[in-house]
Amino acid sequence: MTDPHFLPSFPPMSLALAQAVAAGQRGEVPVGAVVVLQGTVIAQAGNRVEELCDASAHAELLALRAAAQVLHSPRLPGCDLYVTLEPCALCATAISFFRIRRLYFGAYDPKGGGVDHGPRLFSQPTLHHAPEVYGGIAESQCKKLLKEFFREMRYNNASNVLGGQHA
Amino acid sequence: MTDPHFLPSFPPMSLALAQAVAAGQRGEVPVGAVVVLQGTVIAQAGNRVEELCDASAHAELLALRAAAQVLHSPRLPGCDLYVTLEPCALCATAISFFRIRRLYFGAYDPKGGGVDHGPRLFSQPTLHHAPEVYGGIAESQCKKLLKEFFREMRYNNASNVLGGQHA
Repeated sequence: MTDPHFLPSFPPMSLALAQAVAAGQRGEVPVGAVVVLQGTVIAQAGNRVEELCDASAHAELLALRAAAQVLHSPRLPGCDLYVTLEPCALCATAISFFRIRRLYFGAYDPKGGGVDHGPRLFSQPTLHHAPEVYGGIAESQCKKLLKEFFREMRYNNASNVLGGQHA
Repeated sequence: MTDPHFLPSFPPMSLALAQAVAAGQRGEVPVGAVVVLQGTVIAQAGNRVEELCDASAHAELLALRAAAQVLHSPRLPGCDLYVTLEPCALCATAISFFRIRRLYFGAYDPKGGGVDHGPRLFSQPTLHHAPEVYGGIAESQCKKLLKEFFREMRYNNASNVLGGQHA
């Protein structure tokens, strides 16, 4: 659980980027996410798929679940999510289920994204809730981090990591 | 964690139904799921959204995560998933990420399903892996359980539960 703390002069995307960097240092795909409620960061997480042996342990889902624990509620209306990469279909659906108000993401993900690419979940009429979406926030930094990670992976001939996000 | 146990004469969908009944008794939408590897049930779960304060705590995702802990692997190739209701978009994507071999589900879900309805995730070209899918297994029993639950919810005027699955 992450204790709420107020960070008036520190944009949440910088925190999400720090989480992404830390994830990369753990050998995970470098993606980070932060949940904010009324200017207060209430949860933050980076990818932990390999560490937790959990293919669903994406930064967004971990941050959403942590925020729900902080607020003692399975739904988070009024909360905003900042994430360094366009969410996949799993995380986009979770964002809807958790009733996130606004989604801010960094890099676009044509291969694995589920918001502006692929199934475009928030345009699906069967989804009960869609957040406001703002893509391309701190895009170049978020993109650079991922590019460097995958370049290094290729260099190390880590052939078990597929293309796309963190599938 | 669920210890593996062999149940040669007990179809996995019956176990999934038992999990669904137990979920309903806890006040959760009655959906249950079971993961099977080579004839052995390695994990089973029912919905725990309200209990765990986690909008993503669907039966399928909980069972997949538990199975991954049993096998000490974030991916479950060779494993089959039995679930009483057509998975939503979140769970369908998780099924792909966990590399499930075969998906057997009970009732179809035109409002909240993501396999044969809505975004039809396994037909999305950006998804890296799609399981074999068998829908309508023990359909009438699975459907009856959900219908009775929602009828009782309406009777109790519990207006906070929306239509569709367990959004």
